[in-house]
Amino acid sequence: MNLSIIGAGTVGQATAKLVGEYGHNVVAMSDSTGSVVDPAGLDIAEVVTRKREIGSVGQRPKEDALAAPYDVLVETTPTTLGDAHPAMAHIETALRRGCDVVLANKGPVAERYRDVKSLEARYGRSIRFGPTVSAATPVIATVKTLDPAEVVSLKGVLNGTTNFILSEMDNRNIYYKNALGRAKRRGLAEEDPNFDVEGIDTAVKCAILANVLYGGGFSASDVDTSGITSLTPEALSRAKNRGETIRLVGEIDPTKLTVEPRAISVDSPLAVSGVNNALRVETRHAGTFSVRGRGAGARETAQALLREINIFD
Amino acid sequence: MNLSIIGAGTVGQATAKLVGEYGHNVVAMSDSTGSVVDPAGLDIAEVVTRKREIGSVGQRPKEDALAAPYDVLVETTPTTLGDAHPAMAHIETALRRGCDVVLANKGPVAERYRDVKSLEARYGRSIRFGPTVSAATPVIATVKTLDPAEVVSLKGVLNGTTNFILSEMDNRNIYYKNALGRAKRRGLAEEDPNFDVEGIDTAVKCAILANVLYGGGFSASDVDTSGITSLTPEALSRAKNRGETIRLVGEIDPTKLTVEPRAISVDSPLAVSGVNNALRVETRHAGTFSVRGRGAGARETAQALLREINIFD
Repeated sequence: MNLSIIGAGTVGQATAKLVGEYGHNVVAMSDSTGSVVDPAGLDIAEVVTRKREIGSVGQRPKEDALAAPYDVLVETTPTTLGDAHPAMAHIETALRRGCDVVLANKGPVAERYRDVKSLEARYGRSIRFGPTVSAATPVIATVKTLDPAEVVSLKGVLNGTTNFILSEMDNRNIYYKNALGRAKRRGLAEEDPNFDVEGIDTAVKCAILANVLYGGGFSASDVDTSGITSLTPEALSRAKNRGETIRLVGEIDPTKLTVEPRAISVDSPLAVSGVNNALRVETRHAGTFSVRGRGAGARETAQALLREINIFD
Repeated sequence: MNLSIIGAGTVGQATAKLVGEYGHNVVAMSDSTGSVVDPAGLDIAEVVTRKREIGSVGQRPKEDALAAPYDVLVETTPTTLGDAHPAMAHIETALRRGCDVVLANKGPVAERYRDVKSLEARYGRSIRFGPTVSAATPVIATVKTLDPAEVVSLKGVLNGTTNFILSEMDNRNIYYKNALGRAKRRGLAEEDPNFDVEGIDTAVKCAILANVLYGGGFSASDVDTSGITSLTPEALSRAKNRGETIRLVGEIDPTKLTVEPRAISVDSPLAVSGVNNALRVETRHAGTFSVRGRGAGARETAQALLREINIFD
C-alpha cells in the first residue's frame, strides 16, 4: 500500500515509522512548510532527521504530497473546527483521485460529518476515522456497532491530558496549576493547554460519537462544555471521602451533549487513571458495558491508523 | 421486519417480546415439538402461555417456521458441535429463500466458520452472530475491528456460569460443589453443568473469536481446555493473599488456543465478578485495552439480537 502522510508532527512521524515495519510504502510526507515525494518509497529515518535539523520534511511545495502516487491519504494535521479546513480540502483531493482516506484529524468528522458521508458516497471511496477518539482503544468502533434504539446514554472519559491532571491532583493532593506543570513536563499538555483543559477536545469527541450513533447532525458547538481549571484539591479530597473521584465526563444522551467534571464512584468503569480513556454504554435491556484503554500517544495513534490502513490492503 | 424465531427457550421467548416493542413482527416460532405461524404477526403473550401450559408453541410441524414469510431468521436452538446441525440446515434454508440470519446458536461460527462465510457469499445474504459471545457486550464487534498484525494476544473471561461460581467460591470461601448449587438455584447453571464448568463453552467462544480474527480455520476441538471442577477454596484463598483471584481464562494467541483457570491480579481487567465477561486485547504498539459487561442472560442476548436485526431494517 502506498501512503501519503499529511502532517509531520509526532503522530505523522510515528505512523511513517510503524507502517514501514508492516511493509507499506510512504511515498510522500508534508508539513506546514513543504513536502518530500518519492514514488519508490521515502527513507523515513532521513526524513525525520531532516525535519529535526532544518524544521521541514523537504523543499517541495507542500501541495505535492497531495498529488503523489498514493493509494491512501493519512491526514494528521492539527484539528480545526468550523469548516475543518484544510483537512476537508485534503480529503476531497484524495477522493477525487480515487484514493481512500484515514483521519487522525478530528475536525471533519466532528464538524462536518454529513459532508464527509456525502463525499464518500459521491466518490465511492472510504474515509476512516477510528483513530480520532481514544487512539487504538476501539471507542468509535464500539459506538458504530450500537443501535440508537438500545442506547440510554454514552458516557466517556475521552481526554488523556485532563485525566492525567485530575489523577495527579487526586493522588498527590496538589493544585491544578501544579498538576498542569507536571503534565507539560511529561509532554502530555501543550504549551497552550486550553483546548484540552477547557473541555473542548472532549466536546469534539462527543460530537464525533453522537454523529456516529445518530448518523450526523452534531458539532462541538452543540456540546454544553465546562473544563477542569477551577477544580480544587479540596473538591477531590471531599470526593475521596465519599468513595468517589472527579473526572471530566462527556455524556451523549438522546436529548443533549454535555462535558463537565463529575464526581463518580472509584468503582465506576469511568474511573480510569493517567492518560487512559473509557467509554461506558448504558443499554435499555442489557445493563451497561465499558471499553477502557490508552487514549492518547503518537505510537498508540499510529497503531490505530495502521488498523484502518490495513483494511484497504 | 418480519422474523421467524427458531427455538423457544428463554432466549427465543425474550427476543420475541423485545423485538415486538421495537415494531418488528414475529411471524413464526418453533420449538422441538412444533411451530406456530401467522403472516400477520403472532400474539407473543399467547404463544408464551401455550408454551408454558402445554410445552409447545403450536401444533404445526416445526419445519413450517422455516417456510414462513420472514425477512430474518433468528436461530436460538441449543448449540451443537461438530457438524453444527440442525442450525446449519436452518441457515441454508433461510439464505436460499433470500433471507438474512441472526445467530444466538454458537455452533455454526465456532465449528464451521468458513462454510458460514461461503454460504453468505454464495447467496449474497448476511449471517450475523454478535450475540454468540458475551450477549450485548460487544466482544465479537471488538475483535472484528482488529487487524491480526497488531494483536499480541486476546484473553477473555467468557462464561458467566463459571465466573459466578468462582466469584462465589472466592467471596464466600465455599467449595465448588456448593457454589455450583447456588448457581443452579439462581438459574445460572444447567442441571448438567458440564458444558460450562468443563470449559467447553469458553473453548467454543475462543474458537469463534479466533475465526473472526484470522478469518476461519478453528473449532472448539483445537482449544486446549481445562475446567474449574477441581479448584478448591484454598487455592482461591492463597491467590487472595497474593492480591490475585482465579478466573477461567480463554487465550487466543497466534500459535495456540487455551482455556484454563488462571491466577490474575485483582486489578486486571479480567477480574470481573458474577456473570460479567471481559476481553483484554494486548496490542503490539498501543498497550492493552479491554471490554467488560454482562455476559449472559436471556434479555441481554435478546438486546444483542435486536442490535443485529435492526441492521437489516
